[in-house]
Amino acid sequence: MGKVCTGATMSLDGFIAGPGESGFDLLFQWYGPGLPEEVTGASQSDAEHLRRVKERTGALVVGRHLYDLTNAWGGRHPMDLTTVVLTHRPPEDRPVADENFVFVTGGIEEAIATAQKIAGSREVGLNGGQIARQCLEADLLDEFHVDLVPVLLGGGTPFIGPFEGAPLQLEGPVSTVSGKGVTHLRYLVRR
Amino acid sequence: MGKVCTGATMSLDGFIAGPGESGFDLLFQWYGPGLPEEVTGASQSDAEHLRRVKERTGALVVGRHLYDLTNAWGGRHPMDLTTVVLTHRPPEDRPVADENFVFVTGGIEEAIATAQKIAGSREVGLNGGQIARQCLEADLLDEFHVDLVPVLLGGGTPFIGPFEGAPLQLEGPVSTVSGKGVTHLRYLVRR
Repeated sequence: MGKVCTGATMSLDGFIAGPGESGFDLLFQWYGPGLPEEVTGASQSDAEHLRRVKERTGALVVGRHLYDLTNAWGGRHPMDLTTVVLTHRPPEDRPVADENFVFVTGGIEEAIATAQKIAGSREVGLNGGQIARQCLEADLLDEFHVDLVPVLLGGGTPFIGPFEGAPLQLEGPVSTVSGKGVTHLRYLVRR
Repeated sequence: MGKVCTGATMSLDGFIAGPGESGFDLLFQWYGPGLPEEVTGASQSDAEHLRRVKERTGALVVGRHLYDLTNAWGGRHPMDLTTVVLTHRPPEDRPVADENFVFVTGGIEEAIATAQKIAGSREVGLNGGQIARQCLEADLLDEFHVDLVPVLLGGGTPFIGPFEGAPLQLEGPVSTVSGKGVTHLRYLVRR
């Protein structure tokens, strides 16, 4: 079964969004002018990094908040992967499962198991925030991937925030890739 | 005049101390078993990094809280430098200024000016926390040096915290040194 990895672009002061969902322009500058999947604007090492992440990922798990915030990414996640959405109430205007989205209501364990079945031997990717924290607390998380950007947001949504089991020592970084205005770091959770 | 640089060992989630001044054992593991000035326990690249920081620094500025917390480091800062202490009330059992400590009450501007006079062409070093934030807000800060360690503290004292002028884009990292369980990053403040 593939590993479960949380990854996010994070400000130097530890936030994945500024106050009131602000700061995305600053956080995602390293992507270049394109959307995440259109990496032509990113520097070569960053584009290569994004290509590798995309190659090794087989499914995603997100929370309902992000799904709603992005308006379901217009119909499919920009990484072009099936996305498992953890929610209390699946939307009524959509199938519970198709190749774009699978809605699960059974908690983080069911969300991860569902995504792992879809991903096969490839990785399951999670964003930072609540979903990553729940996954960490349920002892289901294998890796932390941080794209660290030279921005101070001063507040907002933390990558993980307070969590059960803190403090936690990670292993690594097992990989450090210096991009253009971003540092790609990979850490392992000792389980 | 030398540059003004804030530097701190920071957890991956952005804290320089855990809740209730905890977590120092995890944060400072990369120093090895020795005190900061005894770098024999650190890996070679980390020891080299610490040597360079020490060489280019000419004076320090700290807040009264850290001075009290460390019990004045037993009489002199472990970096073997004159330390300017910003305080409302200088301690009565010490001279206002000697080669170990200089107490200033005129705010961050006076503290930095005093330290720069002592440091000459070398850098003035600040810890993270309140002092760094005040310095940033007064537009006196030139660089951020972060020793990023693979630890999640889940809460505690942020490197900077909320600050006037947020969000702020930094330049860099202009230097990335991979140590053993630590990543040394250097960023410039665009002024």
